[in-house]
Amino acid sequence: MPNDLEKTPVTVLGLGAMGQALAAAFLKAGHPTTVWNRSPGKGADLVARGAARATSAREAVRAADLVVICVVDHNAAGAVLDSVAEELPGRVLVNLTSDTPEHARKTGAWAQEHGIDYLDGSIMVPVDLIGQPPALIFYSGPRAAYDKHETALKALGGKPAHLGEDQRLAAVYDLALLDYFYGSISGLLHAYALAGADGVRAADLAPYLDTITAFMPSVAVDAAQHVDTGSHPGEAGNLGMMASGVGHVLEWAEHRGLDVSTLRPIKEVYDKAVALGHAADSWTSTIEVVRGNAGMPRGDRASQTL
Amino acid sequence: MPNDLEKTPVTVLGLGAMGQALAAAFLKAGHPTTVWNRSPGKGADLVARGAARATSAREAVRAADLVVICVVDHNAAGAVLDSVAEELPGRVLVNLTSDTPEHARKTGAWAQEHGIDYLDGSIMVPVDLIGQPPALIFYSGPRAAYDKHETALKALGGKPAHLGEDQRLAAVYDLALLDYFYGSISGLLHAYALAGADGVRAADLAPYLDTITAFMPSVAVDAAQHVDTGSHPGEAGNLGMMASGVGHVLEWAEHRGLDVSTLRPIKEVYDKAVALGHAADSWTSTIEVVRGNAGMPRGDRASQTL
Ligand SMILES: NC(=O)c1ccc[n+]([C@@H]2O[C@H](COP(=O)([O-])OP(=O)(O)OC[C@H]3O[C@@H](n4cnc5c(N)ncnc54)[C@H](OP(=O)(O)O)[C@@H]3O)[C@@H](O)[C@H]2O)c1
Ligand SMILES: NC(=O)c1ccc[n+]([C@@H]2O[C@H](COP(=O)([O-])OP(=O)(O)OC[C@H]3O[C@@H](n4cnc5c(N)ncnc54)[C@H](OP(=O)(O)O)[C@@H]3O)[C@@H](O)[C@H]2O)c1
Repeated sequence: MPNDLEKTPVTVLGLGAMGQALAAAFLKAGHPTTVWNRSPGKGADLVARGAARATSAREAVRAADLVVICVVDHNAAGAVLDSVAEELPGRVLVNLTSDTPEHARKTGAWAQEHGIDYLDGSIMVPVDLIGQPPALIFYSGPRAAYDKHETALKALGGKPAHLGEDQRLAAVYDLALLDYFYGSISGLLHAYALAGADGVRAADLAPYLDTITAFMPSVAVDAAQHVDTGSHPGEAGNLGMMASGVGHVLEWAEHRGLDVSTLRPIKEVYDKAVALGHAADSWTSTIEVVRGNAGMPRGDRASQTL
Repeated sequence: MPNDLEKTPVTVLGLGAMGQALAAAFLKAGHPTTVWNRSPGKGADLVARGAARATSAREAVRAADLVVICVVDHNAAGAVLDSVAEELPGRVLVNLTSDTPEHARKTGAWAQEHGIDYLDGSIMVPVDLIGQPPALIFYSGPRAAYDKHETALKALGGKPAHLGEDQRLAAVYDLALLDYFYGSISGLLHAYALAGADGVRAADLAPYLDTITAFMPSVAVDAAQHVDTGSHPGEAGNLGMMASGVGHVLEWAEHRGLDVSTLRPIKEVYDKAVALGHAADSWTSTIEVVRGNAGMPRGDRASQTL
């Protein structure tokens, strides 16, 4: 049973898939760990490994100086936190629940009102990577609160990143990375469905997908340069060729009767950028369409958020 | 100037970005290389490095036993190949132009009619990887034709894969991989646009994207197992949580005024699968929606392609 006196006691509120993984990582690193979940019956494994189960959120919060909450969204987190607000001053609250920057700001304002040191955070890896060296976790909020518990938080993953004092930052980076993630896995599953329609098993396709994944970091770096500089050279591969390419995928997916609701708009974005004159440019020139103001008359653009 | 007598002479038809990269790789490996392009003026670099420029497609084809064509699509390839059909018997024609399996079948039938040994192929990497060890290129068609020129074709990339005698196979794998690729880069660019709307430069976001990319191969393997077995356990991360997650991305992208035509359907696919009762299952259970027959009354499903 871990009871190393040097290790900060921690509390984990929320024992969904991620909350359980977080508590397990704290336990593994030797932190005295108290756990609580709204509905009972979750986390028996954790108790067997030495976690203390609190019978209320209040009891759980009282057990530690570092309180981590991870539930489905900020509305759920708010419901729990409101009920224990007066217990939190003097402790550090770390909210690893994913939500929008606006929710992070609101929770930050709530915390300030109640005199609570608050860090908003976002977990960028699946549960099986929690506690491992590649586990990236974003934090934003008061630097002093982060510094105080950085060592303990490193039990959760080898790549903690404090992005700044503005509590919205972790959510801004989170949502952008999720945008990439959901696009990727949407394409992945569609690829399996498409191959499957021609009798190719997903397991036969999977090894080849690694070739695409392996060159993604260099695609990402090149694309970032295009986006940041506003220059979209198409010598190595032009949008016209790629519109033709995604058109073939769409044609075949339709022919096979798949749902193309996620695929057709990708082709349409390319077609719109071609219509704007970008056929010889890089595919990254579609950013003009993605930014959402490309199709608007110039006079209206000033009213855009961007 | 490469004139190694042991190396198979090759011809490359089409000097777009990819055709030029292919010809350059053959030259670098010491193959006597003849090049041709529909419009003049392309490939001066190649000639400077020792390529012979043919003044017609016919002249180009006559120069070599191995003829590689790489143009924008199979219609374009057909236009070139029709004009040189009688020169091709006795040579091996390798078509590295990307298109649908149906086009590959048609070109295969055309080749058989004309007594031409035909391999259909697909290139799965960007031009800068051509000739490099990770360059995956699919081939399908007569094994004997592939074996005859495997050595020469290895000059194009370290990972040639002969998928079988059915000429459609390379296109089937190609389109599935492209489906994944286009989904990924669509998400990537949307991520940059979303971060940019909050003042985060693409270059600041790019390094963090590697965390997502790094765990993609394991996501792909797990998802393949779910898809192949039809079992979608959601313990490590459930669809309900992920529908909430992609919902946050959508909400924020809309708030920032981005084009969400590619993002909204991803959320809608998740919502449809939740409505079908998959909230506690893995996100891979959305395959039921992606396959396109999930929303149909059972009686109608038999009329689907799948
Ligand atoms: N799983 C992953 O791979 C992963 C990866 C990165 C980030 N995340 C993020 O981690 C967070 C949690 O995800 P998860 O996978 O653990 O989700 P989950 O398995 O679905 O668990 C959801 C948790 O939220 C609690 N909850 C929901 N509504 C509540 C309410 N009104 N009041 C109190 N508690 C409530 C649930 O309690 P009950 O048991 O009582 O329902 C449960 O503990 C999410 O923000 C998610 O985006 C997850
Ligand atoms: N670039 C890449 O990164 C990449 C990666 C993987 C696969 N591919 C595949 O490689 C193939 C070629 O792509 P690319 O990047 O080289 O495209 P590209 O730079 O746009 O070049 C297109 C080529 O097609 C020729 N062409 C177009 N219509 C023609 C016609 N009717 N008759 C004869 N020739 C015609 C063009 O000739 P003109 O010069 O006369 O117009 C040019 O040589 C495509 O199937 C693509 O999907 C490309």
